[in-house]
This record gives sequence, structure tokens and C-alpha cells, in this order.
Amino acid sequence: MARTIQSLERAAAVLRLLAGGERRLGLSDIASTLGLAKGTAHGLLRTLQQEGFVEQDPASGKYQLGAELLRLGNSYLDVHELRARALVWTDDLARSSGESVYLGVLHQQGVLIVHHVFRPDDSRQVLEVGAMQPLHSTALGKVLAAYDPVAHSEAMDAERKALTPRTVTEPDAFEQVLELTRARGWGADVEETWEGVASIAAPVHDRRRMPVGAVAVTGAVERVCADGAIQPRLVAAVRDCARAVSRDLGAGRF
Amino acid sequence: MARTIQSLERAAAVLRLLAGGERRLGLSDIASTLGLAKGTAHGLLRTLQQEGFVEQDPASGKYQLGAELLRLGNSYLDVHELRARALVWTDDLARSSGESVYLGVLHQQGVLIVHHVFRPDDSRQVLEVGAMQPLHSTALGKVLAAYDPVAHSEAMDAERKALTPRTVTEPDAFEQVLELTRARGWGADVEETWEGVASIAAPVHDRRRMPVGAVAVTGAVERVCADGAIQPRLVAAVRDCARAVSRDLGAGRF
Repeated sequence: MARTIQSLERAAAVLRLLAGGERRLGLSDIASTLGLAKGTAHGLLRTLQQEGFVEQDPASGKYQLGAELLRLGNSYLDVHELRARALVWTDDLARSSGESVYLGVLHQQGVLIVHHVFRPDDSRQVLEVGAMQPLHSTALGKVLAAYDPVAHSEAMDAERKALTPRTVTEPDAFEQVLELTRARGWGADVEETWEGVASIAAPVHDRRRMPVGAVAVTGAVERVCADGAIQPRLVAAVRDCARAVSRDLGAGRF
Repeated sequence: MARTIQSLERAAAVLRLLAGGERRLGLSDIASTLGLAKGTAHGLLRTLQQEGFVEQDPASGKYQLGAELLRLGNSYLDVHELRARALVWTDDLARSSGESVYLGVLHQQGVLIVHHVFRPDDSRQVLEVGAMQPLHSTALGKVLAAYDPVAHSEAMDAERKALTPRTVTEPDAFEQVLELTRARGWGADVEETWEGVASIAAPVHDRRRMPVGAVAVTGAVERVCADGAIQPRLVAAVRDCARAVSRDLGAGRF
């Protein structure tokens, strides 16, 4: 069995460090945060810079993530089968629902957004492809945690921070939410992640019936809910979309 | 001076290989293409997989790029000052021109798209953030090559493939195109990259008057040109946008 390579693990740690928190860091900060000798950190940064994974600001000498990561991230999407199969169906869902549509997969301890269709109106919206969402509070995260055992462990082990007064954080209550999600076949987030925002998600399965992702509509709680309940027509639209994508991935009809 | 780290260079070569051409490769293909022993390649892939930079397809055992690259690429964008400053201005440009807007920077031997605003109509469009465009044939590339000495060298050293019958490939003719670009202060691409598509670009400068990127409108040649000439109102709109972004980056008014 091949061993892992320490310099590569350290380089990944440098990139993770630059992706979180401050995002522009000097050599000393990087070395001390990761517990590396300055010479070691410099060798890593120099090579990462040469390969385009980090850039150095000429004025301050601080390091930040580099353009090659954007290019490689785009190539990752190009080969993403789930995303490719979902493009047309999620577009249709955004049109029929009039809301934003997201496609998410489990990544590390959260949901990685791999596709985002803007709400079909004239408003200014920010693309969230590549962004992470919490597993325990979002509709996408709950669906993944309800259907994917790995996501379930991650969500149970996580801190489950209260992001709004409505976030479910207690383990027992959270397990009940996941049971309800499985019983209904879809998950919801009514102001549990963002005040004023509600979301509905359904699971996508592949040909081996494995849960490989989830699709969600997200919008103002005033539109997604009516008379205090989630709108059934939106639930139906999201589930239809998730079923269609699953079929395209080779999942059976029943 | 710190030396570069060989295992890191090799890992970057693995990622570049997976980003181009086939995109799903077996261990033997990767080892032989990069001239590495199989054990060495396996150690690299195992570590890259552990860090989320590559994923292995359970059915075929083949490797492809991993989700962590998308997350890091998104973090790169989050900290991108040029892109942040350009968001509102490029949105306005898309509305006023009715065409797609792109923001590009020099990366390796091409133009990396760091922001893309869809044409404001109901048509289905594919986001091209993270995609690369050629330096020698696109409006963005010509502007970068005209104003940035590094981009100029890259464009002159490149192969300059004829992508359409209208692509300028000869060195002397290409230099003349760049001279014209500098003299006018903007660049154009009339069916030199894609048949039926025309584009107009202008340079963005920072507070040190360095060319840090370019902004372009792109659309059907029938709309971007009229009576065989590029529409002056679109040229004016692109240049206004590039000037506004430059001002926001701290460039002087004159």
C-alpha cells in the first residue's frame, strides 16, 4: 500500500488555510499556524506559486490562492456527470418554480454547491457554485444526511451551530428531522439557515440507488410557504426534478 | 533561496493531466504519461485523493479531479479584488449592451475568465467562469497582449492556431493588430475565434497603471456589428465599464 506524501499534505493544509479566515497571509503567519519551519513553508509556497496555486501580492508580500485553482475547479465541473445530467432539469425547475435552484453534493463536512440556476427575474444575484452550505440546517444538507450514511455521520459529529433561532441543534431532535425527511422523501429549511429564506430539497440517486446529491429550490419564505406551510406545488416540482435527474443517471423507475 | 519540491510539482502535473484531454485516467495511464514509476504515481494519487483533489470512480477505478478544487477555486474568486470591483459595473454593461459580459485575466498561456454576466434575455446560457480563452484571437486576449508585456510574450511565443478563416496567425500581422489595439484603446474579435460571434474588449488598469485584466462584451456578429463595422455605442459602453472598474481599483482619472 502506497504511503501518503507529507509535503503534499502540508501543501494542501496551506491551501485550506488560505481558503478560510484571513485569505491573505504572510510567510510567518502560515509557518506558525501550521507549525512548520519558515524554510519548509517557504519551499511549499514557492512551489505552489510556481504551479499557479498561490499568488503573492507584490506590494505586501502576502500570499493568496492562485488562478490555477479556478481553472482546475472548472475542469472538475466539466467532468461532473451529476451536474451534466441535471443542467436542463434544474433550468426547467427554476422556470416553473420562479425560484433559485441549487444542486449539492456531500464534500467534507458540508454541502458543496455544484450548480446554481438564478431565479428567473431581473434581480442581481451572486453565483454560489463552489460555495459550501451546512449539513444540519439546509434542505440540501438534511436530505444528504437522511439518505447518505457518510453525510449522516458528518452531520451527527458536527457542531450544529444555531444559525437562526429556528435551527435544530439537539441530536435527538435532529434525528427526528431526518426521519421525517426519509418518511416524506424530501427535506425543508424554513428560516433555519438564513432569516427570511426557505428551501425544499429532494435526493438524487444513481443507477446503484446510491444517494449522489440533492436538488433544492430556495426563495423568500413568503413565496416558498403559504399560510405557514410549505407550498405543495413547489415540493412536487422539486421531487419531479430530482426523479428526472436520477432517471438520467440510470436509476430505476420504482 | 528555497528549492521547489519535486513531489508537489509532480502532483500539479497529475492535476493538469486530469484537467485536459481524457479527464478520467487509470493509474497506468497517469504513470506512463508523466514518466513516473507506478508506485510513485500511486503515492501521489492516494494523497491527492485523501485531500479531495482527485476522486476515484468506484466502478472503473479511474481517477478524475476532486471537489476540493471547486471549493478552493471559489475561494480564489472570493478574494479576487478585480472581480469584486467589477461585479456591479459588468452587470450594468450587460444590461445596457444587451450582450454577455466577460472579465478576463492572463493565466499561463491564455485568458482565464474570472467573471461572466449572462446576456439579459431568457436564453439558456452556460457559465464560463474558470474557462480559458486563447490570447491571440479573442478580444480579451488581444487587449491583454497589447498592454501586458508578459501576455505579449506568451501570445508571440504561442502557436496561434487558425480557429476560423479570419484568425490572424502571422507574427507581423498579429503585431499590427496589437498596435491598432493600443492606438484605439480597445480590441475586437470579429469571427476570429468562433464563427458568428464578435467581441469588443478594453483594458482595466490598477492604481500603479498596470494592466490587470480586460472586460469584454460578446454576442452574435449580426448584433455587435452593423454595416460591416463594429457598433460605436458598444465600444463606448465597454470602454466606460473598463474605465469605471479601473477607477474603483485606484487608477488615476487621466
